[in-house]
Amino acid sequence: MIVNTEEILTRLQDALERDDFDAAIHMLEVLRGPDQAKLFAELDDEEQVELLPKLDLSDSADILEDLDDPEAAKLASSLPLETIARIVDEMEPDKAADLLGDLTPQQAQAVLSRLDDPEEVRPLMIHPDDSAGGLMTSEFLALRPLMTAQEAVEALRRWNPDSEDIYYLFVVDQEKKLCGVVNLRSLILAAPNTLVQELMDPDVISVRAGIDQEECARTMTHYDLAAIPVVDELGHLMGVITYDDIVDVLEDEATEDIYHLANVSNSDLDPESSTAEQIKGRLPWLYLNSLTSLFAAWVISNFEQVIAQAAVLALFQSVVAGQGGNTASQNVAMAVRALALGKISPRSFVRILVRQFFVGLLLGMSVGTVVAVGVYLWRGNLYLSLVLGLALVGNLSLGSLVGVLVPLGLQSFNIDPALASSVLVTAATDSMGFFIFLSLASHFLQYLH
Amino acid sequence: MIVNTEEILTRLQDALERDDFDAAIHMLEVLRGPDQAKLFAELDDEEQVELLPKLDLSDSADILEDLDDPEAAKLASSLPLETIARIVDEMEPDKAADLLGDLTPQQAQAVLSRLDDPEEVRPLMIHPDDSAGGLMTSEFLALRPLMTAQEAVEALRRWNPDSEDIYYLFVVDQEKKLCGVVNLRSLILAAPNTLVQELMDPDVISVRAGIDQEECARTMTHYDLAAIPVVDELGHLMGVITYDDIVDVLEDEATEDIYHLANVSNSDLDPESSTAEQIKGRLPWLYLNSLTSLFAAWVISNFEQVIAQAAVLALFQSVVAGQGGNTASQNVAMAVRALALGKISPRSFVRILVRQFFVGLLLGMSVGTVVAVGVYLWRGNLYLSLVLGLALVGNLSLGSLVGVLVPLGLQSFNIDPALASSVLVTAATDSMGFFIFLSLASHFLQYLH
Repeated sequence: MIVNTEEILTRLQDALERDDFDAAIHMLEVLRGPDQAKLFAELDDEEQVELLPKLDLSDSADILEDLDDPEAAKLASSLPLETIARIVDEMEPDKAADLLGDLTPQQAQAVLSRLDDPEEVRPLMIHPDDSAGGLMTSEFLALRPLMTAQEAVEALRRWNPDSEDIYYLFVVDQEKKLCGVVNLRSLILAAPNTLVQELMDPDVISVRAGIDQEECARTMTHYDLAAIPVVDELGHLMGVITYDDIVDVLEDEATEDIYHLANVSNSDLDPESSTAEQIKGRLPWLYLNSLTSLFAAWVISNFEQVIAQAAVLALFQSVVAGQGGNTASQNVAMAVRALALGKISPRSFVRILVRQFFVGLLLGMSVGTVVAVGVYLWRGNLYLSLVLGLALVGNLSLGSLVGVLVPLGLQSFNIDPALASSVLVTAATDSMGFFIFLSLASHFLQYLH
Repeated sequence: MIVNTEEILTRLQDALERDDFDAAIHMLEVLRGPDQAKLFAELDDEEQVELLPKLDLSDSADILEDLDDPEAAKLASSLPLETIARIVDEMEPDKAADLLGDLTPQQAQAVLSRLDDPEEVRPLMIHPDDSAGGLMTSEFLALRPLMTAQEAVEALRRWNPDSEDIYYLFVVDQEKKLCGVVNLRSLILAAPNTLVQELMDPDVISVRAGIDQEECARTMTHYDLAAIPVVDELGHLMGVITYDDIVDVLEDEATEDIYHLANVSNSDLDPESSTAEQIKGRLPWLYLNSLTSLFAAWVISNFEQVIAQAAVLALFQSVVAGQGGNTASQNVAMAVRALALGKISPRSFVRILVRQFFVGLLLGMSVGTVVAVGVYLWRGNLYLSLVLGLALVGNLSLGSLVGVLVPLGLQSFNIDPALASSVLVTAATDSMGFFIFLSLASHFLQYLH
């Protein structure tokens, strides 16, 4: 169970208000790292800047590792360089590289030059944050095939990593190329003079440093790996990614998809984000949608005379457009998720399109019938009901088709299907819906009054 | 990198067509477990039923563990009971319990009675699939505090679990109550006669068997745990959950949220699901939306005379409704995700509502101004533009408010905010949008012709 930090927060803020830092530090120190970070994140900026340097270095490092990236960078850049450097020394190298990457190049350089072991961090900084190289830590222990189990244990004893959790040990040959993996259990159970090459599994799954973090996450989850080695083009072991980094990636990718589907372009936003950031992440999409909805208005304008003669059409045009949009959105969600989880393959595209057209047709007939009957009972006009029912059948069939065509199409051009699908699909179902309904209606205009 | 199974599939199907099972089995056997399952899932039902019993038992077990739950259950129930029992014997107990839970009670009972060790699986079947108890495996090694490191290693040697990956070892007292955790590294490095109680960390995080899988996943990700022990009300150790189960939970929960936001109620659906299942998971939502859109039509019907006099209103009413809906959906997505990730606390609700009203106001003014100017340039009617602009300001402010009020409100009644928010919010923004725009317009009717 996650510790409830709400009540501690009040007491912590009280202590800070009285400048009773000893009490504040004590309240934090009894908590576990992630809880410290959660509590710390709730404090005001000034309180954070004042408190962090007073904490134990390893606690400060844990907190900076666990804070959201922008927040950690903001906090770090408010501290004296010497203080940041001492804290960064205690951080896991991959997290340290992420933090330095979020500072200005000048600040990062200044901190790097003050680190105890800058070479543990510097090489990690060249990799983009969202690549396998950006996720990996350079802090790993590489065994050699001809070591004995006892020598491996000795190496493990001498090695003193910042993180205690080790899941597998990797083995490299003379050229430092990855050649095997040993799990800790088999090392424990081995006779002391067993060679590492007898313990290791040579069939080791690895990723290249340049691949995208999402692909890396998929590989680890597909093979249920708690850690994966990262190699360069020639197969040299460069680092290790552990499952906790991957969980963050999966969460981030899911958030990104959910946000993109809802037309929010910055997945760091939440309901408490600053007003300026929210406007920036949301307004462009609303403008884009305004454009497409004005196009839909233009479609309607071609039928202005029809509506003037039968204003009742204005009541139901949105039902047709909206239900087409809903059907399409269902398909977009399913397609985006199936693509993200690698559940559909390119060669099934045609089969999917055909199936979804028929699914849409059936949904359209079901919805069309019920709505037509309902509207007949309400308005008593058979022609109106018929036009509405037929338009729903048409728009739901096409909507369903468009709802898979657009995301699959975007994906095949390597465009993130979550990002653009919603706008395109809504534009299509709105315009098609208005057009189908109003042009059908204009044929039966004399019966609609 | 994940093995590309597409090309192997063609060869595999060829082999099966020629009834060349040896070749087919060989093609599968050279692959890793998850790849075998991926490839296997692509085969027709009859091919699966024919092939599975011919495979090595442990390969068959891996495949059944990795297939989607419904697919695994369908396959298993087509096999002879004796065959399923032999395969289930090789499965991890938590996966075996899941599989048996998806069979009919008669089938499950019949398989259980044929297992080598039914008591490893039976107790797991009483827990709901989506609780911590449903995720845990009963296959764990519990150490005792007064064991020496050497005795612990001996116990580890005698223990022969179906899964090789062990991340931590848990320690229980005489009453089998959980009292500590030992990581493998410290066991490797310990002197043989060190007591387990000296090696263990007594501050061990655990979850109760009854808690929801999502809360369990949050606890593990919050504390970066590769495994978490499950205890009963009295603290007795009952099982262990490993991170790979949690990754699945996180993926499932994200899929569920994405689907619910798009009004798809069955998150097992994908674009290739059977037509009947899709209709079942999608049609109820379309009916519900039809109802709300007919309510919106009724709102418009109160202004039918107004529209009859100024048909131009029918062009722009949907712009107001739609943009309010888009703004609200942005808020829903942010709120649902922030709630899922535990990023907002109940005490910030009022602050969020106030902020979101102002964000909506600003978005409304920005969108309203641009759309009003655009429509003025198009139609040349200042009053129309003004009414449209003001209606946009109103509907976007209210839409933004509703977009957080609804999910936060649902959450505080313990209703899944993703499930119902979309429908409620769209119903509100449509009806409000039409009402605001058309009632404003009716005041300026004489200027709108």
